[in-house]
Amino acid sequence: MSPAQTAPPVELQSPTPPETVRAVVAQSAAAASAWAGTPLRDRACVLTAVADALDAAADELIPLAISDTNLSEPRLRGELRRTTFQLRLFSSVLEDGAFLGVRVDHADPQWPMGAPRPDLRRMLIPVGPVVVFAASNFPFAFSVAGGDTAAALAAGCPVILKAHSGHLRLAEATVSVVTAALRDAHAPEGVFTAIAGVDAGKLAIQDPRVKAGAFTGSIHAGRALFDLAQSRPEPIPFYGELGSLNPTFITRTAADERRDELCDGLIASFTGSAGQLCTKPGVVLIPSDSDLIESLRTATLPGGSLLLNDRILDGYTDAVQSLAGDPSVEVLAGTIDPTVKAPTPTILKTTARYVLEGGSSVLDECFGPTTVVVSYDDDKEMLDIARSLVGQLTATIHGTDADELDDLVSTLVGKAGRILWNEWPTGVSVTYAQQHGGPYPATTTHSTSVGTAAIERFMRPVAFQNVPDRLLPPELREANPLAVPRMVDGSSKV
Amino acid sequence: MSPAQTAPPVELQSPTPPETVRAVVAQSAAAASAWAGTPLRDRACVLTAVADALDAAADELIPLAISDTNLSEPRLRGELRRTTFQLRLFSSVLEDGAFLGVRVDHADPQWPMGAPRPDLRRMLIPVGPVVVFAASNFPFAFSVAGGDTAAALAAGCPVILKAHSGHLRLAEATVSVVTAALRDAHAPEGVFTAIAGVDAGKLAIQDPRVKAGAFTGSIHAGRALFDLAQSRPEPIPFYGELGSLNPTFITRTAADERRDELCDGLIASFTGSAGQLCTKPGVVLIPSDSDLIESLRTATLPGGSLLLNDRILDGYTDAVQSLAGDPSVEVLAGTIDPTVKAPTPTILKTTARYVLEGGSSVLDECFGPTTVVVSYDDDKEMLDIARSLVGQLTATIHGTDADELDDLVSTLVGKAGRILWNEWPTGVSVTYAQQHGGPYPATTTHSTSVGTAAIERFMRPVAFQNVPDRLLPPELREANPLAVPRMVDGSSKV
Repeated sequence: MSPAQTAPPVELQSPTPPETVRAVVAQSAAAASAWAGTPLRDRACVLTAVADALDAAADELIPLAISDTNLSEPRLRGELRRTTFQLRLFSSVLEDGAFLGVRVDHADPQWPMGAPRPDLRRMLIPVGPVVVFAASNFPFAFSVAGGDTAAALAAGCPVILKAHSGHLRLAEATVSVVTAALRDAHAPEGVFTAIAGVDAGKLAIQDPRVKAGAFTGSIHAGRALFDLAQSRPEPIPFYGELGSLNPTFITRTAADERRDELCDGLIASFTGSAGQLCTKPGVVLIPSDSDLIESLRTATLPGGSLLLNDRILDGYTDAVQSLAGDPSVEVLAGTIDPTVKAPTPTILKTTARYVLEGGSSVLDECFGPTTVVVSYDDDKEMLDIARSLVGQLTATIHGTDADELDDLVSTLVGKAGRILWNEWPTGVSVTYAQQHGGPYPATTTHSTSVGTAAIERFMRPVAFQNVPDRLLPPELREANPLAVPRMVDGSSKV
Repeated sequence: MSPAQTAPPVELQSPTPPETVRAVVAQSAAAASAWAGTPLRDRACVLTAVADALDAAADELIPLAISDTNLSEPRLRGELRRTTFQLRLFSSVLEDGAFLGVRVDHADPQWPMGAPRPDLRRMLIPVGPVVVFAASNFPFAFSVAGGDTAAALAAGCPVILKAHSGHLRLAEATVSVVTAALRDAHAPEGVFTAIAGVDAGKLAIQDPRVKAGAFTGSIHAGRALFDLAQSRPEPIPFYGELGSLNPTFITRTAADERRDELCDGLIASFTGSAGQLCTKPGVVLIPSDSDLIESLRTATLPGGSLLLNDRILDGYTDAVQSLAGDPSVEVLAGTIDPTVKAPTPTILKTTARYVLEGGSSVLDECFGPTTVVVSYDDDKEMLDIARSLVGQLTATIHGTDADELDDLVSTLVGKAGRILWNEWPTGVSVTYAQQHGGPYPATTTHSTSVGTAAIERFMRPVAFQNVPDRLLPPELREANPLAVPRMVDGSSKV
C-alpha cells in the first residue's frame, strides 16, 4: 500500500449511530486474529510508526488541542511527547517479550503430586477487541493514542476508541494521523477505529464481540459503564480509573523544617493544569499549629485559568461553592467567584476533627484548582484520617528521618496504589514499576493504566498440554526462537 | 502455644446465623494485617504445617469423605495427597518470591519521557479477607484446604471458608485439623474461619471487609455470587469456575490409527469419578463414518456408581433423560434408568449438523457419567462446531502428524484456557504452567484456580515512589535482603 494513500475522513462531530457502531465493532472483531497473529517485532514497528506520525503531526495537532481544551502549549507539547514516548516504550516491551509471562513445565514422571506431570506451556494472549474511552483532561496521553490504546494495541488487541466530547476536533485529526500510520505500516484493516457519543460507547461495551473496556473519568460515568460490562451475558473486564483525593500527610517535623518548600510545592502541584489532574493533592493534612498554614494563607497563588470545558467549569464552581459554604470550612487563600470563566485557585481549610465527625463532603473529589487543608492536632488524628479513607490512586507523606511512620505507611499501603515520600503525586512517570490504580473507587480493578504493566489488562493466559512444537506459538517452542524470558520448571533464572 | 491446646469445635451442620457471619468476618479482617505482615518464610512454614497435619489426619478424614461423597477410597486418598502437595508447592512459591512481581526502577534524570524518572518500586500485596466457596466434587482439593484456600493463604490473605452442603461432616473435621495446625504454627488468630449455608455465603461476599471471592460450582450459583460481588458499593474480584464441556476433537487419521486406545481413553476419562469432574470430556467430535463410533457402541462400560449426593443425582437424571429424549439424539451405549441410585455410564450420539442447526441443549454441561458423541462429515463441520463454542476450561485434539490443524488450534485457543494434544483433559496437574480457567462461562475472569499462578488472584500491586529503604517492605529494599527475583530498570535478567 502506498504511503500516499490516505485514510478516509473520520466523522466524530456527531454521535455515531447504532448501525455504524455495530459495523465498527464488526471491523474490529474481523481484525482481531490478524493483529494477534502479527509477530511481536512487527507489532513493535507498527507502534513506533504511530509514534513517529504523531510527532510529525505535532504542529497540526497542538493548535487543535489548545483550542479544544484551553490547556497551555507547553503542557500540551509535553503531553504529546509523553504520548509518543509511551508508544515507543510499549514497542520495546514487545521486543523484550517478558510481558508474555511464558512458563514452561517439562513432563516429569516423578512429579510428587502423585501423578506424572505432563508437558505444560503457558503464555498470555490478547483478549480481543477493546473499547477505550478517552479522558477529558489528557487529550493526547489518555485519549486517542494514549496509554490505554497503546497498551491494548501492544497486547495484540484491536481498539475501538470512544472519543471524548470535550475535544472532538482534535480527536478527528488524531484518529486520521493514527489510521494513516497504521495503514502505511501494514497493520490489519480495522485494528483501530473510533466512535463518538455516550450511547455509542454504551452500545459498544455491551457488544458480545468486545472483550474488554478501559476508561478514565468520573466515578459516576465509570461506574455506569462498569455495571454494563459486568451485567453482560458474558461479563468482561472493565478497567476504569475513576477518582482520587490523593491525600497528602505533612508531619510536624517536615512542616517545621521545609515550610517554604512545602508551601511552594503544594501550590504548584494542586494548580498545575488548573487542578485538572487525576493525582492532584485534594486534601492535605497539616499540624494545626504549624506556620505552614500561615504560609499558605499569605502565599501568592497563580492567576485564573480557563478549565477544559463549560461542563467541567460548572461542576467545579458548584463543588467549590458547596464546600466553601460549609460553616466548618474556611477559605484559607484565594477567592471564589462563580461568575468567572477562568477561576483562580483556592485553598480551603477545615479540621481533622470535623472530617472524622462525618463532614464527609470534604473528602469528595473536586476537579479543578482547589485543595483542602485538614488541620490535625496530634498524630492519632492524622492516622485516623488515613484509616477513614476510601481507595486512592496515591497517598503522599512529607516527613523527616525523625518521624515514626510505620503505622501511617502500612495504613496508606492498604488504601492506595502508590505511596510517595517527599515528592508530589502529580506528574505520573511512565515506567516499568509505575502503578496508577488502587482500591475502588480509585480504579474498578487493582490494575494500572500507566506504565508497562498496563499491557497485562488486555491479555489472558492459555496453556498448551503435550502439544507438539509445530502446533505451538513460537513463544512456547522448546528452542525459544524468539528468546523470550521464561520460567522453566518453576525457576525464573535465565 | 502448646500443641496440646485444641481449637474450639466448629459447628457447620446448621446454617451459620447472620450475626455469627459478621463476627467471623470481623475476626478475619482483624487478622489481615498480621498475616500480610508475616514474613514469607514463616508463611511458608505455616502452609507446610497445615499439609503435615492433614496428612497425619488422613485415617480420620478419609472415612468421613467416603461417607459424605460416595467417592472411592483410592480416589479420595489421591485427592488428599494432591491437596497437601498443593499446600507444599505454594510453600515453595513463597520461598522463591517471584510471585511478588517485584519491579525496581532507579531514578533516571535522563528518562526520555521528557521529565526525570523518580525511584519507583512495585510489588504485589495481599488484598485482604477472601471468601472461598467449597466445591461439591472435590471434598479435599477444592474445598476446606483446597486450591483456593492454599492460594489465598499463600498470598497473605485470611480465608473465610464457606463449606459445601454436600460434605459438612468432613468439612467440620477438616476445619478442626486446619485450625489446630494454624494455632500450633503460630498463625494469627482468625486467619482461617468457616461458615455454612447459602445465605451465610451471600452475606459474607457482600460484607465490605471482604476483598475477594473464589468459587467452584455451577453456572447458576456462581453467576449469582458474581453478580452480588460486582454490584457491591465497592465491587470486588470474584473468581468463579463455573462450567465447561471440554470439547474433544478426534481427527479422521487419529480415529483410524488409534481406535482402541481412543475408545478406552474416552471411557476412562468421562466415567472417572462418575463423570463428576470439571474437565470431563462432555462432547466428542468423531468422523461420522469412523469405526471408533462402532467401538464405543459395543464397548464394555464400567458399572454404576453412586453420585456425590441426591441433588446431583436428580440433576443428572433429569439432564440425561432430557438429552436422550431428543429425537435427534440416540443412546449409543449404556442404558438410562431414572430409578437407580447408582447410574451406569451412558454414551449419547448426535450429528454436527443437528448441533449447528441449533440443537443447543446438546452443548449444555451434564454433570455425571455421560458424554455426547457428535459425528461430523468433514473438517469444515468440525471447525464450525469449534467456532460455535462458548468459553471452555479445556479443548482437546486427538490427531496425527498428517493432520492440518492450524485453523482448529487457533480457533480453540480463542475458546479455551488449556489446549491438549493426544491426552485427556481430566486429571488436572498442579504445576507452575497450569491454566484452569478460560473465557466465560468456564470462569468469571481469565485467571486460573489451579497451579501456582492462582496466587495472583488474591494480590494487588502497590508502588513506592522515592520512599527511603527503612520505610520499604524488605522485598523492595535496595540490597534485596530476601533475594527475591526482580525486574530492575526494565530488565528481568538475574
